[in-house]
Amino acid sequence: MLSPTERTRHRRLREQGVTDRSVLHSVLATGFVCHLGVVVDGTPMVLPTVYGFTAETLYFHGSVASRSLTQDSEVCVTVTHVDGLVVSRSVFEHGVNYRSAMIYGRPRVVADEEKLLGLRVLTEHCAPGQWEYARQPSRKELAATTLLALDLAEASVKVRQGPPDDAGQGDDLLESGAVRWAGVLPLHTGWGTPEPDPALPPEVAVPAHLHRPDRLSSKAFLQT
Amino acid sequence: MLSPTERTRHRRLREQGVTDRSVLHSVLATGFVCHLGVVVDGTPMVLPTVYGFTAETLYFHGSVASRSLTQDSEVCVTVTHVDGLVVSRSVFEHGVNYRSAMIYGRPRVVADEEKLLGLRVLTEHCAPGQWEYARQPSRKELAATTLLALDLAEASVKVRQGPPDDAGQGDDLLESGAVRWAGVLPLHTGWGTPEPDPALPPEVAVPAHLHRPDRLSSKAFLQT
Repeated sequence: MLSPTERTRHRRLREQGVTDRSVLHSVLATGFVCHLGVVVDGTPMVLPTVYGFTAETLYFHGSVASRSLTQDSEVCVTVTHVDGLVVSRSVFEHGVNYRSAMIYGRPRVVADEEKLLGLRVLTEHCAPGQWEYARQPSRKELAATTLLALDLAEASVKVRQGPPDDAGQGDDLLESGAVRWAGVLPLHTGWGTPEPDPALPPEVAVPAHLHRPDRLSSKAFLQT
Repeated sequence: MLSPTERTRHRRLREQGVTDRSVLHSVLATGFVCHLGVVVDGTPMVLPTVYGFTAETLYFHGSVASRSLTQDSEVCVTVTHVDGLVVSRSVFEHGVNYRSAMIYGRPRVVADEEKLLGLRVLTEHCAPGQWEYARQPSRKELAATTLLALDLAEASVKVRQGPPDDAGQGDDLLESGAVRWAGVLPLHTGWGTPEPDPALPPEVAVPAHLHRPDRLSSKAFLQT
């Protein structure tokens, strides 16, 4: 279980706070781009960047934030999946079906063996099979890469799923007397057909590990 | 044109900074959930929330951040679309095709006529046609809603599209002598079939304005 702290306690109604670590892992497993929040000269910056993770640790590229982060900077990393628009009878009750994880902490810059492990974890998370298939980093490339590690210790997961909440509350009828439609407009995200680099000879086939299932849909999440 | 400031100047290679306001509008038009960065007691928080916009102003719900934001708080609002994974010959050159907008400023809490306008803009951005179709906010609901407005004055848009950059750099061949595949794994996001509220009588049809084109795909963006 994740330990709730002052900032990870849930205050909003109608949203479910989840403290089970497997749900955190499930949200992280569904995407590969997070939003990294850092404070620079007292003001916030929110930067999209790729990530991977192990049971205990989130790894992410630090180059986007390298000039902003010092060893002791606190960050907030947020991963959000938008699963649909909740269309209610009243404008006020409209909302979003989503899953979101927020992780707080002070990231470490990793080096040596952990740097190689972290890059492998990140690469395999984005494209399973690519670490062995692609040319692995040279010493020079490793030196040019900043990888950060953040403990998955202080985290908050929020999930909102399901239909609108305002049935039978007096807004079911249009002025015409007809029943107002309400429900969810689902949003689906999935992989399309791989697009070969135009520089590639046309006979080169897509390797099997890059043919990917629809890993990012909410249905995949809900079935796990 | 957007005026670049110290924090919106682009420092990374291979990413294109865009200062044309129409590109900012185009990125904002493609989604409806942003990541709002705020500073609370010196540490960052990154919160997903819905938004809408006019030519000059971003409107977003302030309730998620209401306990964190004061009238003079600086925020960073980031909207990101992940369009695909760039699969290169070397691990080092892997990347993401994306479009991202970062907007900085001090949001205003809006009231009265602008609040109603902002809520209308936000609702119509998420679900065009819903403002007239759904029951509009009562005085009590308006009072219970915090809406924030942020000038679209200081913003940075970054776009990375296209194939990998590392053709012919010596990593084209696998150890077996075969040519290594490289290209883009596109990621598509689009609306699925509307899911009626189970509380709805089965004969109620989905109104025409909720049958939606695939408004969130990168192709739609690239055609505009």
